[in-house]
Amino acid sequence: MSRRRTAAVLVTGSEILLGRTQDRNSGTLARSLDAHGVRLERVVAVDDREEHLRAALDGLLADGYDLICTSGGLGPTHDDRTVAIVADATGRELVLDEPVLAEITEIVTGYAAQRGVPVERLLPGARKQAMVPAGAHVLSPSGTAPGVIVPGATTIVVLPGPPTELADVWGRALAHPALAEILGAQLERRILRIWSTPESTVARAFDQLGGDDHGTETSICATRLEVEVVVRFPADAREAGNRLADGLVAEFGDAVYAQDDRPVEQRVVETLIERELTIGTAESCTAGMIAARLGSVAGASATLRGGIVAYANDVKTTEVGVPAALIAEHGAVSAEVAVALAEGVRARLGCDIGIGVTGVAGPSGGSEAKPVGLVHVAVVGPKGAVETLERRFPGDREAVRTNSATAALHLVRLLLADDAIRA
Amino acid sequence: MSRRRTAAVLVTGSEILLGRTQDRNSGTLARSLDAHGVRLERVVAVDDREEHLRAALDGLLADGYDLICTSGGLGPTHDDRTVAIVADATGRELVLDEPVLAEITEIVTGYAAQRGVPVERLLPGARKQAMVPAGAHVLSPSGTAPGVIVPGATTIVVLPGPPTELADVWGRALAHPALAEILGAQLERRILRIWSTPESTVARAFDQLGGDDHGTETSICATRLEVEVVVRFPADAREAGNRLADGLVAEFGDAVYAQDDRPVEQRVVETLIERELTIGTAESCTAGMIAARLGSVAGASATLRGGIVAYANDVKTTEVGVPAALIAEHGAVSAEVAVALAEGVRARLGCDIGIGVTGVAGPSGGSEAKPVGLVHVAVVGPKGAVETLERRFPGDREAVRTNSATAALHLVRLLLADDAIRA
Repeated sequence: MSRRRTAAVLVTGSEILLGRTQDRNSGTLARSLDAHGVRLERVVAVDDREEHLRAALDGLLADGYDLICTSGGLGPTHDDRTVAIVADATGRELVLDEPVLAEITEIVTGYAAQRGVPVERLLPGARKQAMVPAGAHVLSPSGTAPGVIVPGATTIVVLPGPPTELADVWGRALAHPALAEILGAQLERRILRIWSTPESTVARAFDQLGGDDHGTETSICATRLEVEVVVRFPADAREAGNRLADGLVAEFGDAVYAQDDRPVEQRVVETLIERELTIGTAESCTAGMIAARLGSVAGASATLRGGIVAYANDVKTTEVGVPAALIAEHGAVSAEVAVALAEGVRARLGCDIGIGVTGVAGPSGGSEAKPVGLVHVAVVGPKGAVETLERRFPGDREAVRTNSATAALHLVRLLLADDAIRA
Repeated sequence: MSRRRTAAVLVTGSEILLGRTQDRNSGTLARSLDAHGVRLERVVAVDDREEHLRAALDGLLADGYDLICTSGGLGPTHDDRTVAIVADATGRELVLDEPVLAEITEIVTGYAAQRGVPVERLLPGARKQAMVPAGAHVLSPSGTAPGVIVPGATTIVVLPGPPTELADVWGRALAHPALAEILGAQLERRILRIWSTPESTVARAFDQLGGDDHGTETSICATRLEVEVVVRFPADAREAGNRLADGLVAEFGDAVYAQDDRPVEQRVVETLIERELTIGTAESCTAGMIAARLGSVAGASATLRGGIVAYANDVKTTEVGVPAALIAEHGAVSAEVAVALAEGVRARLGCDIGIGVTGVAGPSGGSEAKPVGLVHVAVVGPKGAVETLERRFPGDREAVRTNSATAALHLVRLLLADDAIRA
């Protein structure tokens, strides 16, 4: 096998260093580089100051990566300096690229017309964005900022900061001949996603199976109520990689709920569509998060009929048919109400499967009997199939709600795995 | 004014470099450091390989920051090496901290009992997590991993990776005397959030007002349909900072919709509560995202009655009362149906304000007349007040849905600004 190529990502943006916006681009690039056999070794984020960006770029150039991808700093504003700094660091002049200027001008002209802004205001920015290092390959813009590929001992790919623009322009870079030598053969990998098992238990099993001693690279990551194990290996370590992965599957059995990348909502939606089952939600504390996650999957309309966000108690009664007496007797946060929500929405929307969630998201509203973080989830399916879960989630309001939604989606998965509901 | 202290954040985790999980901790630390007058100059992320983490740490130590915060690599698993590497890089032995071992043992014992796992399996991990650099200050764990503060010319604060744990343990670090010398006076700042204005227009106004020539530091960031400007300044540049911010307010008038940090959903919920108005949602393409964002605000139950996710057309009719004939005539994605959704949910749930959203989220389902990204939003309030918006959003399914939800929340804000609906 040829040498693995290495890469670094340099993210620029004062707003990131101030914590005012979150970098999503390094993750996009990380996944793509991994898929193309390139090892991402470092991500550096700096603010927009010229000296900071330059120092970081010089440092990464000195490290000798095969590829550096930069994200951000291509806009029309005063603090967008990436292209000029890359040109300077690689000893190239900045030159106006007429074809891309024409492209950008057309884009901003349309934008100005749509928004009722005089186009003259946008033209200086367009011209600034069309300046590229001499000899660089220009990648057409997705928004108004083109990307550039600067060839050299280290190839530099300069990409715009807005995430959808970056993804588009990076897609063009991947197809460009200038990157052909860097993008290599994909490592093989086995993904295991293990539900409701402590990370330390998984780590212990990994160690007992011999760990990464035979040419594999494994990451173990606890996130969203699951532990994700990725065993990565070159073709010549395939046997070791499969032995390790199969050993973990044998150890954890049914808790290994997935061996691929799809998020739980995607698995659930795809299974529902495949089985021609419909679903609906009745959510209290999650207030629509579960429906929104189901709806995030392309094609969800074939299974998701809808949902009720039943935040106020009387809405639980009038819109989902939860008896007011049941709420009075057990409280809104109770297993009984969770089941009634699931059954109610199933009947109300005429779905095969209903989800009900109720809990105390906090920070206030908790009591000794029903503390913040207490959540009841119920999933009701055909033929009387029911899955329920009571958990007390740690963390803040957002963590409680997100984990509740994730748990509900897993309950649907468990219900779908139940042979009893199959036709 | 004394010298601004500087900081770097070092994030470790192969799962981040592989793009399998997203780093949220650097943002948490960035906002906190900014609030304490410390200038975060660099964020570096590396995988869990000892040599990569060590090289990054050595590089940051050589850069001479006053403070380095590390995130991650404190778990009980084989690839968690941060504490040992920090000890080595600072020439300290690793020693067992008995008090924190007792703390961790108590935590994992409770955890094991709750989950039905033999505690013996967790004890080796607990012992590993209780090893700290000699002479370091130990910060009690939030999960099972304690933090440590290693004093020196550069103070190093070692923090756990799980976001809620990091936030907790960092809170303890902030209160620790060992950081007292580093945390300084807060910079003053003016925040302006400008709705629906091109970033380049804002940048041009900024430049015409003289830019950062008088001791201010300004960031201009376009995100979520808005441009956020933060003008930051020390006390001795207060006049220049206010002149700049006031100049932008004068230039953009009502488009400057906020001068603080609160997300639009928080502003909306707080205003609704203050005016004793209730709200409900009827969502098609966003499938619960708007309700979920309203529900993300602590105390939302005082205004959010609930919502209907009306994904299937017949659910729009049966649950929200949108006439089937209206859908047949105009199509589900139409201004008429958006208004009918908003009016319908307002009547159905007995709210003061109803939100209706319908659109083509994609990737399929678009047509020439109704392309992917086309979204209609309507907000209906008391006294016949209505706000509507038709937009074609660029980007993928997630971008279309997220922007639709943001636009809907802004429409509520605009409706609330309308004097006509005030009592």
